[in-house]
Amino acid sequence: MSTDPLVIFTPSGKRGTFPVGTPILTAARQLGVDLDSVCGGRGICSKCQIAPAYGDFPKHGVVSQPEALSEWNAVEERYKSKRGLIDGRRLGCQATVQGDIVVDVPPESQVHKQVVRKAASIREITMDPATKLYYVEVQEPDMHEPSGDLERLSLALTDGFGLPPLTCDLRVLTTLQPILRKEKWSVTVAVHQGRVGGPARLLKLWPGYYEGSIYGLAVDLGSTTIAAHLCDLRTGDVLTSAGVMNPQIRFGEDLMSRVSYVMMNPGGDVEMTKAVRDAINALTVEVASEAGIEADAVMEAVFVCNPVMHHLLLGIDPVELGQAPFALGTSSHMELDARDLDLDALNKAAQVYILPCIAGHVGADAAAVALSEEPNLSKDLVLVVDVGTNAEILLGNTEKTLACSSPTGPAFEGAQISSGQRAAPGAIERVEIDPVTKTPRFRVIGTELWSDEDGFTEAVGQGGITGICGSGIIEAVAEMRMAGLMDPSGLIGSAEQTGTALCIAEGRTHAYVLHDGRDVDGPLITVTQGDIRAIQLAKSALYAGARLLMDEMGVDKVDRVTLAGAFGAHISPKHAMVLGMIPDVPLDKVTSAGNAAGTGARIALCNVAARRRIEDVVHEIHKVETAIEPKFQEHFVAANAVPHATDPFPELAKIVDLPVVSFNQNANREGGGRRRRRG
Amino acid sequence: MSTDPLVIFTPSGKRGTFPVGTPILTAARQLGVDLDSVCGGRGICSKCQIAPAYGDFPKHGVVSQPEALSEWNAVEERYKSKRGLIDGRRLGCQATVQGDIVVDVPPESQVHKQVVRKAASIREITMDPATKLYYVEVQEPDMHEPSGDLERLSLALTDGFGLPPLTCDLRVLTTLQPILRKEKWSVTVAVHQGRVGGPARLLKLWPGYYEGSIYGLAVDLGSTTIAAHLCDLRTGDVLTSAGVMNPQIRFGEDLMSRVSYVMMNPGGDVEMTKAVRDAINALTVEVASEAGIEADAVMEAVFVCNPVMHHLLLGIDPVELGQAPFALGTSSHMELDARDLDLDALNKAAQVYILPCIAGHVGADAAAVALSEEPNLSKDLVLVVDVGTNAEILLGNTEKTLACSSPTGPAFEGAQISSGQRAAPGAIERVEIDPVTKTPRFRVIGTELWSDEDGFTEAVGQGGITGICGSGIIEAVAEMRMAGLMDPSGLIGSAEQTGTALCIAEGRTHAYVLHDGRDVDGPLITVTQGDIRAIQLAKSALYAGARLLMDEMGVDKVDRVTLAGAFGAHISPKHAMVLGMIPDVPLDKVTSAGNAAGTGARIALCNVAARRRIEDVVHEIHKVETAIEPKFQEHFVAANAVPHATDPFPELAKIVDLPVVSFNQNANREGGGRRRRRG
Repeated sequence: MSTDPLVIFTPSGKRGTFPVGTPILTAARQLGVDLDSVCGGRGICSKCQIAPAYGDFPKHGVVSQPEALSEWNAVEERYKSKRGLIDGRRLGCQATVQGDIVVDVPPESQVHKQVVRKAASIREITMDPATKLYYVEVQEPDMHEPSGDLERLSLALTDGFGLPPLTCDLRVLTTLQPILRKEKWSVTVAVHQGRVGGPARLLKLWPGYYEGSIYGLAVDLGSTTIAAHLCDLRTGDVLTSAGVMNPQIRFGEDLMSRVSYVMMNPGGDVEMTKAVRDAINALTVEVASEAGIEADAVMEAVFVCNPVMHHLLLGIDPVELGQAPFALGTSSHMELDARDLDLDALNKAAQVYILPCIAGHVGADAAAVALSEEPNLSKDLVLVVDVGTNAEILLGNTEKTLACSSPTGPAFEGAQISSGQRAAPGAIERVEIDPVTKTPRFRVIGTELWSDEDGFTEAVGQGGITGICGSGIIEAVAEMRMAGLMDPSGLIGSAEQTGTALCIAEGRTHAYVLHDGRDVDGPLITVTQGDIRAIQLAKSALYAGARLLMDEMGVDKVDRVTLAGAFGAHISPKHAMVLGMIPDVPLDKVTSAGNAAGTGARIALCNVAARRRIEDVVHEIHKVETAIEPKFQEHFVAANAVPHATDPFPELAKIVDLPVVSFNQNANREGGGRRRRRG
Repeated sequence: MSTDPLVIFTPSGKRGTFPVGTPILTAARQLGVDLDSVCGGRGICSKCQIAPAYGDFPKHGVVSQPEALSEWNAVEERYKSKRGLIDGRRLGCQATVQGDIVVDVPPESQVHKQVVRKAASIREITMDPATKLYYVEVQEPDMHEPSGDLERLSLALTDGFGLPPLTCDLRVLTTLQPILRKEKWSVTVAVHQGRVGGPARLLKLWPGYYEGSIYGLAVDLGSTTIAAHLCDLRTGDVLTSAGVMNPQIRFGEDLMSRVSYVMMNPGGDVEMTKAVRDAINALTVEVASEAGIEADAVMEAVFVCNPVMHHLLLGIDPVELGQAPFALGTSSHMELDARDLDLDALNKAAQVYILPCIAGHVGADAAAVALSEEPNLSKDLVLVVDVGTNAEILLGNTEKTLACSSPTGPAFEGAQISSGQRAAPGAIERVEIDPVTKTPRFRVIGTELWSDEDGFTEAVGQGGITGICGSGIIEAVAEMRMAGLMDPSGLIGSAEQTGTALCIAEGRTHAYVLHDGRDVDGPLITVTQGDIRAIQLAKSALYAGARLLMDEMGVDKVDRVTLAGAFGAHISPKHAMVLGMIPDVPLDKVTSAGNAAGTGARIALCNVAARRRIEDVVHEIHKVETAIEPKFQEHFVAANAVPHATDPFPELAKIVDLPVVSFNQNANREGGGRRRRRG
């Protein structure tokens, strides 16, 4: 048996014996204890701070005494006097084992884990991003042992951190020599290593020890909205999130109209590619500025997007995606230099990762939803619906996963809605309509108060109430149905039919007044018959997609439903069910997951192993093609009513008692099978 | 024992038994027989043509009969009718083994070997360039088995040729889909695989079977001259070679003046980088146009250059190379996209390989000389001298190799010489001076005739005699010494002293008239006292470098000398010895190797294994730093005379009887230790 001292780490409880003189940091690494270090044990970064615990620990079977650690040394003294160190703390790279000892690793010294809030669970992602910071001291050049500065830096990183030989962009290489010499050959470097064992790439250098952090962008590039989350690559914290309209909208609202634009206008893809890249650059500048950092410190970006957006981002003409067999130019994940995509706002050596596509209509956004929601790891059968201009729908469990995409159109993102807007302060996001008085109350983004509560007007502030966002319109339409203001076919009743003056005439149809604007100096906000029709088309497409997957799976019900929404929107499960967006399922089995595609992008940004995971998983997902499946059309037509006319909804019936009304006096001119639109 | 038929290949004699029905191409590959194929056995490229030999072959122990091959088939018939096939020839991919057979592989079906002419030997390089052409038929897309077009192309290349998964530049990816569809999913691709087992990179595609070839540039980027060889990457043939002056000359004639320029003019490196890249682009267009090919078909470039040129090409400020310890930014070989270097004249996806540097003053050009001349594989001790503005000097044998670089200045390249010019038609390249009459005869580049032969003037043609190139000035000075026109200190005598009116006064010194220009309508071409001084400085630096290596090696003589010269110049061993450029050695042990650095670049272009070889060898070469070695200065000063004053030259004495003359009447104002110049 070893007579070496015993070292016990708390809170992990990991233990082992080590020769006298072993640094605590070394012991921790050998035991796999979660103890951070950037400087590789040089007493500079202080990330490896530990708190020795002295006393008798019968539970652990040791007595831990101050003599069990080496004496406080000059490096620790220097660090403490220069930057401060809490009393009782030691630097794990300096304190060495002298006897049996219990060592506590305080939370701030643990390698950061990032909590991703999900509907059903809170999950930790271990921070293991592709780009990390390292502090090294590089051997000075010696005329008699000639090797380049880059090669000596590379050697220092291999010796200190086990990195493979370093490569770097010429634009970084040209900065190397003066920076190395600035702080006497000590330097902090940002190194990108996209895969274990893969090449290491030098992205940036700072003279000496760099106190700052580096950042990454997780971008959900949607047809209507581009959403970006700026993450700290050390902690995983999201510093800012922001979204802009996709400027390609001027070339066509949905994907197929953009493909058509290219067909009609050769070279149109080049215009669209430029537009979206410019928008991403502008968004990068915006989030960096909001977070108070330099955009130059953004070292990585991860993109998720549908196949058409994917191709237009890459500069591939999307015309093949407009016709069977919907062949992708490339389906694999992509590892690129940001400058390949003209993303000049990021650091000049920044790296880009794009998740793989599943198929011609099921893109990297669906892959991101799969990464975030993991239907393939679910024991019960889960339907994941990611609502956007193109909805990504996944149905699966541990045995099999199916995916399709459905052309819902942009209504759920607030576009094509008369008072629609994207989710931003001033947008109505929650709606309730009193079934007796037929009057609405609502909440807007930016305050927790409801519109009939005291102080609401003040809380909304100067911007006022500006429109309805995606989640707001879903609730509004569902509430109108529950309050008897709209019949199952989707027709809004007149004031006479509904008994409320809030149902106003608008041409030959009616509209319901949600907010008349005078109180808070805002616009008149109504839900029009056209809005209802747009929502009906969208929800029918969504429902038809889900049903198609259920057919393919050979089931007529699912165990649970996860509703994921576009940027900023959390969809209300109850209202989604009333509207008929999703198949009938017990209400408590419907959860709202927020922006699952964006979350998937963040996961891939924060953890390289997750990239490998989704690259594998996409090959196991079976794609169902809505565009050529006649049954899709049948489901689509059948799903037009609110709720659907032809399906039984026992679970829905348990939560609401939908009034029996019919406003269809002259036969509905607009109802039925309006031609669906892809996009 | 196998009862399978026996297949014997000639001329290699390789043999083996194969099951009936095995294609001859397959048998050849399994035996390692040198039989070409681009299309992977689809009967399209005809590179695998074979000539079956029928009859009784007692030497081989077989009787070979026509029935031993499968019948002439439709694919062969189609090929013959469309493109022709010599009678008796078969396609190796179509003809299958039916019985014992002798098969001859005609020379044109052998994988090309390229002969590199070297001084001492003729060596074959097996053509195995990084970029090769492959013809494949790609599986069409299938909606139900979705994968991208790139992924299916990659699969076809893996299946057909064993290539690893394909990556490609976005700019190539954007061209993929239409080209694949143009000839029904058959396509020829240029794929770059820089290292065995390394990634495969798609550089270009052609619809269907591409009849053409692809090309590479081997570039010797010198301080004074940039020389480029355009090579066919299938055959290794050099189609054109061309050279231009390095435009950086306007920033400083030698390397150290260029480094000084940067020190005095911050940002000056950026100007110089742009100048040299522009010149390479112009040169690329020139050689491609001369060869009658599109520059877009140039898929690769290999560069060799000294460290300062290396850094200026890469865009690294060379200032560290101007002062001890002469630290390189990077010393490793470089694998780059051509566009990283703004080399836009090449194919847009072209790849660049730069040989590794040995040390701060011993660059990739010295590595290329080592690759070409292989002193490290020589049993006897060989001194390799590569003459340029900066001379690369190697001394070695199988036990040890030393290298240094010596700042000779540009005189050997014809610069700093009053009538100097680069090696091009019209330049005097050979000189003889009659020791009795003191009259010269010479040859110029562009004709084999000497100036005193009939038809010389007509042969020189309209361009006339324009100047003296590097090899011409070396011969002229040596001949002047042998004819007694110049004394050992380097002074040219007057007409009175020498007895010839061709020695004319020029200020306070004299000049020798090589050519008065009136006969052929050209300029007056003289060798001036200044020219002699420039050559003395250059040859002293060269000699001092060689001696320094000999000191380091602990020898006072070498077994043989290889003289390598800049673009186009073959240096005369005898004249080099008379001039004192090289240590004393038997004349038959001095060989002239032409442009060894350029040859090294060509070898690396044609064979990827050679790249690995030199990457390893550079680590074994011990560098000697001339700049800080006091002995270098001593050797330099001592070597000023023609021949050297202080060294015994027994071998030289065997070939020439140098006249005893002295023109030093007033003590030589210019002799002795003029301060040497690095460059």
